[in-house]
Amino acid sequence: MKIGILGTGMVGEALGTKFTQLGHQVKMGSRSAMNEAATAWVKGAGPNASQGTFADAADFGEMVFICLKGAVFLDVVKTLPPKSLTGKVLVDVSNPLDFSKGTLSLSICNTNSLGEEVQKAAPQAKVVKTLNIVNCEVMVNPANGGNPTMLLCGNDLGAKGTVTQLLKSMGWNDVLDLGDITKSRGTEMLLPLWLNLFGLLGNPAFGFKIVRGY
Amino acid sequence: MKIGILGTGMVGEALGTKFTQLGHQVKMGSRSAMNEAATAWVKGAGPNASQGTFADAADFGEMVFICLKGAVFLDVVKTLPPKSLTGKVLVDVSNPLDFSKGTLSLSICNTNSLGEEVQKAAPQAKVVKTLNIVNCEVMVNPANGGNPTMLLCGNDLGAKGTVTQLLKSMGWNDVLDLGDITKSRGTEMLLPLWLNLFGLLGNPAFGFKIVRGY
Repeated sequence: MKIGILGTGMVGEALGTKFTQLGHQVKMGSRSAMNEAATAWVKGAGPNASQGTFADAADFGEMVFICLKGAVFLDVVKTLPPKSLTGKVLVDVSNPLDFSKGTLSLSICNTNSLGEEVQKAAPQAKVVKTLNIVNCEVMVNPANGGNPTMLLCGNDLGAKGTVTQLLKSMGWNDVLDLGDITKSRGTEMLLPLWLNLFGLLGNPAFGFKIVRGY
Repeated sequence: MKIGILGTGMVGEALGTKFTQLGHQVKMGSRSAMNEAATAWVKGAGPNASQGTFADAADFGEMVFICLKGAVFLDVVKTLPPKSLTGKVLVDVSNPLDFSKGTLSLSICNTNSLGEEVQKAAPQAKVVKTLNIVNCEVMVNPANGGNPTMLLCGNDLGAKGTVTQLLKSMGWNDVLDLGDITKSRGTEMLLPLWLNLFGLLGNPAFGFKIVRGY
């Protein structure tokens, strides 16, 4: 499959590398077509890897991953040709983290979510929210986080099925479909606890497993 | 130990019954000293159980549990003689759930929490936030929820130690101290996901286990 990745940070690199290892073709996009982090990544990741602008990556992908900080996609989407996302599965891995107040808070939450805003900003795409509840080391190898549950949500059943298949190929055996994109509220609101635990445990090698009594 | 319980709903009843079974003396408090639900509970729970007003229950308890809906404690506390809570461990099991908008939201979250407001409203007490992340059937028997992790937080180490001992006596083997009372934000913000899962799984017999890779 052809996968576009928006963002050249740790999350984009980790997912991009994993996808090339699984045999997918990956184009990493950034503001500049010749972004240095992307160039370095392409060199390391081999022949399945390429780079370009955000628009290049979106246009390239049959599936497109949002690996941008905070709510940055809501600005980036305005720079994309609308048809570059038409009918595509758009996977939102980002969280509306806001560190501007000195302490952590979410810039959107409770009665709305970034996932919902992403779907509104790209109505021509099928948005699936997932992977946002673990660190990127765990995203690409669930065993690194003790094999937690992966939660996903979105309005399109087919898109969620495609993403679930990809997650399974990455090692995610416990994947739970929470429902429509409004369910992003609950998964994004896990972030304050996630950051608390990250500080407490001293590393990001953990996750949340939904356990059941009967 | 003498335990006061504020509230006569499902949570108060389940915890009250469990505590009497563990040999504690429990007084359940409500607006009226002769609340019918409390009377029925006292009849069933045996000689360790008694009832009274909110003030009676607070005064009685060496440890006092808040088992009230939403943020109701913030009103109830104004009716209590301040010394009824002085120096006591005040366990906040409640969540700032707001169903008034037709759909669920939290009345306090993100940059504040009910746990923090409870501590501000009762500065003479040592507030510990815990048990708010599972249904009452799981609170009193963690196996009913697949033995999840129990999270707690608060400003007083001694109070958290006392509550942890009580939790262990109730069957909680995986108890994690998240830090000070501001960490209530993270646990209360689990509620939208909890309610989502309750609807999805069809019963409340579940919980969140923190799992680790290394």
